[in-house]
Amino acid sequence: MPDRRFPENPMDASQLQLIILPAGLIAIAFAAFLARDVLSRDQGTKEMQAVAATIYEGAVAFIRRQYTTIALLALGGAVVIGLLITVFETKDVADTDIFGPELGLRTAIAFLVGAACSMASGIIGMFISVKSNLRTASAARRSLVEAVQVAMRGGAVSGFLVVSLSLLGVYLMFAAFGGLGDATAVQQAPFLIVGYGFGASFVALFAQLGGGIYTKAADVGADLVGKVEAGIPEDDPRNAGVIADLVGDNVGDCAGRGADLFESTAAENIGAMILGVGVYVVAQKAGWPNPQAWIFFPLVVRAFGLMSTIVAMFFVRGREDEDPMNMLNRGYWVTTILSVISLAFVANVMMQTSSGIGENGIPSWVWFFGAGVVGLATSIAFVYITQYYTAGSHRPVKEIAEASKTGPATNIISGTAVGYETTFVTAITIGIALFLSHALGERAGLVSADGRNVGGIFGTAVATMGMLMTTAYILAMDTFGPITDNAGGIAEFSRAEAGAREITDRLDAVGNTTKALTKGYAIASASLAAFLLFSAYIDKVNLILSRRGQPLMESVNLAEVNVFIAALIAAMLVYFFSSLAIRAVGKTAGSIIVEVRRQFREMPGIMTYEQKPDYARVVDITTRAALREMVAPGLVAVLTPVVVGVLLGYQAVAGLLMVGTIAGVMLATVLNNGGGAWDNAKKYIESGHLKDAAGNVLGKKSDAHAAAVVGDTVGDPFKDTAGPSLHVLVKLLATITLVLAPLFIR
Amino acid sequence: MPDRRFPENPMDASQLQLIILPAGLIAIAFAAFLARDVLSRDQGTKEMQAVAATIYEGAVAFIRRQYTTIALLALGGAVVIGLLITVFETKDVADTDIFGPELGLRTAIAFLVGAACSMASGIIGMFISVKSNLRTASAARRSLVEAVQVAMRGGAVSGFLVVSLSLLGVYLMFAAFGGLGDATAVQQAPFLIVGYGFGASFVALFAQLGGGIYTKAADVGADLVGKVEAGIPEDDPRNAGVIADLVGDNVGDCAGRGADLFESTAAENIGAMILGVGVYVVAQKAGWPNPQAWIFFPLVVRAFGLMSTIVAMFFVRGREDEDPMNMLNRGYWVTTILSVISLAFVANVMMQTSSGIGENGIPSWVWFFGAGVVGLATSIAFVYITQYYTAGSHRPVKEIAEASKTGPATNIISGTAVGYETTFVTAITIGIALFLSHALGERAGLVSADGRNVGGIFGTAVATMGMLMTTAYILAMDTFGPITDNAGGIAEFSRAEAGAREITDRLDAVGNTTKALTKGYAIASASLAAFLLFSAYIDKVNLILSRRGQPLMESVNLAEVNVFIAALIAAMLVYFFSSLAIRAVGKTAGSIIVEVRRQFREMPGIMTYEQKPDYARVVDITTRAALREMVAPGLVAVLTPVVVGVLLGYQAVAGLLMVGTIAGVMLATVLNNGGGAWDNAKKYIESGHLKDAAGNVLGKKSDAHAAAVVGDTVGDPFKDTAGPSLHVLVKLLATITLVLAPLFIR
Repeated sequence: MPDRRFPENPMDASQLQLIILPAGLIAIAFAAFLARDVLSRDQGTKEMQAVAATIYEGAVAFIRRQYTTIALLALGGAVVIGLLITVFETKDVADTDIFGPELGLRTAIAFLVGAACSMASGIIGMFISVKSNLRTASAARRSLVEAVQVAMRGGAVSGFLVVSLSLLGVYLMFAAFGGLGDATAVQQAPFLIVGYGFGASFVALFAQLGGGIYTKAADVGADLVGKVEAGIPEDDPRNAGVIADLVGDNVGDCAGRGADLFESTAAENIGAMILGVGVYVVAQKAGWPNPQAWIFFPLVVRAFGLMSTIVAMFFVRGREDEDPMNMLNRGYWVTTILSVISLAFVANVMMQTSSGIGENGIPSWVWFFGAGVVGLATSIAFVYITQYYTAGSHRPVKEIAEASKTGPATNIISGTAVGYETTFVTAITIGIALFLSHALGERAGLVSADGRNVGGIFGTAVATMGMLMTTAYILAMDTFGPITDNAGGIAEFSRAEAGAREITDRLDAVGNTTKALTKGYAIASASLAAFLLFSAYIDKVNLILSRRGQPLMESVNLAEVNVFIAALIAAMLVYFFSSLAIRAVGKTAGSIIVEVRRQFREMPGIMTYEQKPDYARVVDITTRAALREMVAPGLVAVLTPVVVGVLLGYQAVAGLLMVGTIAGVMLATVLNNGGGAWDNAKKYIESGHLKDAAGNVLGKKSDAHAAAVVGDTVGDPFKDTAGPSLHVLVKLLATITLVLAPLFIR
Repeated sequence: MPDRRFPENPMDASQLQLIILPAGLIAIAFAAFLARDVLSRDQGTKEMQAVAATIYEGAVAFIRRQYTTIALLALGGAVVIGLLITVFETKDVADTDIFGPELGLRTAIAFLVGAACSMASGIIGMFISVKSNLRTASAARRSLVEAVQVAMRGGAVSGFLVVSLSLLGVYLMFAAFGGLGDATAVQQAPFLIVGYGFGASFVALFAQLGGGIYTKAADVGADLVGKVEAGIPEDDPRNAGVIADLVGDNVGDCAGRGADLFESTAAENIGAMILGVGVYVVAQKAGWPNPQAWIFFPLVVRAFGLMSTIVAMFFVRGREDEDPMNMLNRGYWVTTILSVISLAFVANVMMQTSSGIGENGIPSWVWFFGAGVVGLATSIAFVYITQYYTAGSHRPVKEIAEASKTGPATNIISGTAVGYETTFVTAITIGIALFLSHALGERAGLVSADGRNVGGIFGTAVATMGMLMTTAYILAMDTFGPITDNAGGIAEFSRAEAGAREITDRLDAVGNTTKALTKGYAIASASLAAFLLFSAYIDKVNLILSRRGQPLMESVNLAEVNVFIAALIAAMLVYFFSSLAIRAVGKTAGSIIVEVRRQFREMPGIMTYEQKPDYARVVDITTRAALREMVAPGLVAVLTPVVVGVLLGYQAVAGLLMVGTIAGVMLATVLNNGGGAWDNAKKYIESGHLKDAAGNVLGKKSDAHAAAVVGDTVGDPFKDTAGPSLHVLVKLLATITLVLAPLFIR
């Protein structure tokens, strides 16, 4: 008898699955609509258009060269992976009925499709973003609300493309590899598409590294040679490095973060589907209706997340005198609330079990719905935690600003202490989220034939799905950042009217906050997703071991010397990788400084506005240097897990994966939040909030401000190069080990 | 038939055990001889004596108050631990025949004895060190060699006291708790003395934190208010904070590091003895001669290490025109070579098994001797690694100096990159040492009744023993640092003749290197020791579980959600703890700045040398502030493992322990080496090695130098407060969980 306390399933789960394809297509159509809307808007003055055209040119030049490099690397990667799989994943070790050359080919294709989708969403998103900056600057001459809407819609193009392409890619690969076929095929298909996730991580790694190095080298280089050496203001057209700086905002924050979250959603989908196979087996044995729904569940949830975000876009509005952050928050809350409602609906329809098997007779879907809500709540928690640590109105930023009074050394010491401190609340929040979602899932009553409770781990997967429902919106807010930053640059550069600049300044401040939020969100989602990707790795290893008739991997035993050494290497890897990334920024910035100095020296007319600096040359030099410098950290990230796996075995790889994730998440937290706090301590002083003992304002040009500028510059490569690249590293570890697991088993 | 390739055992193992007590006493007598030698030396001019007396006064005032605070904390700790053990370690859960109130009392006593021995060695060592600085300054007026000898002998007093008190303490506690009795008592005694190790870590934590905060707050505070604000030189007598700075060198580097290594040697001894119990059982079953020798082995090795160091002290000599570092290195190599020889002898005598049970018929003792040599080699490797990363003649320091040309921001970025980079070679070296010593031990043929190979883990223990044989010498070199630093301060302060100052400057530079070496050594030994302490923890938990008839802990499974959460918390803990420690320095430095400013303002005669600043008041304020600020990080360190254990269980604690060790070792590496490299980049510029593009020297007072000073100041709390405190934290995690294991098992 059905439990009266909970509604019955209103429809059949197999019908709900049909929403995935149309939802993905609708989101793409909506992105096209937004793009058309943005492109059709007023393009401002001639001067504005000229600047924007230069930025556009530089961005396209970088992206073309960067993505050519990445495409070549990906092609090489695909060949290597295909060959490795062909050689190592032979019939007796394959976890599916497909093996050897056929599996190698399929994996290579999945890898390339993942790489291509990630590249496509990055390129198109950046294209629109570079077009939106001009329209935002122009709209800022008329209306705050309009400027917010243009920037947010431009950002949303990226957001929708990233999430829908990731969703459609996974779904279509799944279908192509037999996921819509019979029971065996459905069970095997998730394992066959892991290459897709690896392809996405591979592109994300290089996109984030290259973009991150470019953007911060340009920023640091242009500032040092312009503001510090030549004494001219930021974004001054006489500085030959300034266009590179504006280009950098787009290629780093926009294209880089897009690839990062593309990868998150793809990898999480695939990992959750692999875990779904475990539940599928249980469901099939128990004779529950629609067992395949457990595998499709992550995709359907994602589809509903997209729909919720489309609706929310119409709520980004407000009054002219309102804080722009409020307008963005309004849309975020609408997304979240609609996500909660639709999550309940999807869980209710798709998670059909025997009645009353959950604890206290509460149906399974209710427990999992709870886990999903935990994920959404974690996302909200991170939004507020990030604000507390990086916004000027709270203790941490004030503390750094105060410390700036005694000079750059105390500013750096204080910012380091704040960055380290932020790990506390991050770790505790992630810990609670994991604990709760696991505990809720365990109570759902999903017990496999050999008595294992498979619900706990699936609970953490559902929490990740819940969290990632809002990805498209978060990504739109993130891309809002570089668009408004650029709009401000265009306004300054084209000497637009003061009113427009005031509005772009306000938007820029909001953009800084949203960029910080996205990083917090990316970290939290990476940590939650990591736990389910571990489990997917263990499932995969055990499938191989059981085929070979070897004893299963029961645990990842840190007390084994090999696992411990791998864990040590993992903790080292995140520092070493960051070291390479940070140093790459320094080297690239060095080449910019040399070139701008040369132009100042050889073209004396620049300082008197009689000569135009050669912006293109700086863009070109930065591009070359950034692409050269991204290779070393990228290879370290890709090769370390392979070397450890081959030398120390599959259990050691699991240790590397887990401790690497933990260490990576913690270091990224330190770098992102420390960097954000330094940035805002400088802004806090610039807005005149810092006072000396006598009550006099210590504003711009004070010694305290100079000290805060040092902190801000130090924080730049931390928060925009190394930190975000670590997010990708963490997920890359998961996807690469998932794909190459057979290599590590001897 | 005995194997002809290897010598037979020349004597009986039970005779060799008898060396422990006399060796410890001889080392103490030798320390007394050195102390008398130093104290009887010439005390220099009246001015020198006056300064030295002021430093002495300040140091004694701080140590008195600090150790009173620590003693009170230790008393409180003893009561709490005693009660917890009484309540939780009841008959059915105790791992020995002693349980309940009796065990509680014994543990509390062991804790207090450990605490008292650590405090005694710290206090006496610091007393002699503060007396040696004056004698070194005076000797520097005559001879470099004599100055080196005075400083090194003063330092060796600490070195010998620390190691011999730790050895005697463990031995006597072991004897008092039945370790010399029958088979059962011998097996149980190692578990009964774990409280001794915990007491030592507890004192070490607060000694290092309090001393570290004091020394760097005084350094940073005095520099900022003197050099930066008032524009007077370093160590200028007009700066009221300068005596506090000189006091700080003694209380931080000398007393703090002494307590740190006291703890290392004590904990490692106890952990190795616990592992020895495992081998003892095997040896007894197999009927090998002298099974108890496996338990005594660590103590005998330590005794021979002490004897080797005594001999080596007589090799610290050289020519007047020689690099002083060569003289110290000469002694170090003599210690190492004698240690290798005596290790072979001890292993040969004490590790008696059935003939030919090791792989390829090579006797067990040879395999373990190999493992010990791995440990000694690791120690040498770390000495050179640290030099590469922190000495001016190599790439890393040059890179930071070059980056200083573009200002403080690039100096900090570059130093951070170098600090992060140093984790690579550290992790790889530790990994290789663990792998090799484990592999060698595994081949010794020690297989327990249930088929487990207990040799591997014992191999890592022997490596740790080998490494720690040279502790007394390393510690002497370490204390050489603050003594020469102080001698330089006394020479400067008392305006001694230029020749003397030149010699003290040379010694000071060497002292900086030796201080850095000790940190590398402390980290390496902590990592090696950690692995054996994990195993001791697992042994202890399994003893309790088997008594309760519960299934044993087979693994520390990172894939369990509780273990993963604990690992996450561990990785966070090291950052959060460091954040508190770094912030404490900032706060304490702030109170110094306020006070020195007040004195400059209210006592205008100071600047014209007409008035003497009130040094004592600054010392007093620093003392109070440092002791207040050490409590928060101390409590966080002590309480986190307890809270995690109670909430998440004993397996989670093991995860906390292991990942905490890994994360702590990596972060300490970053902080120590980064700080050391910044320090030496400044020195590199000061010695005129940095040149601009045109070949002009960028020396003192250049912008590059100012930038390098910022880096140096930032590095101070990293390398002398947070980094060294992390060493202690790592070992505290091990000892506290070992003592409180019964709490975590439900």
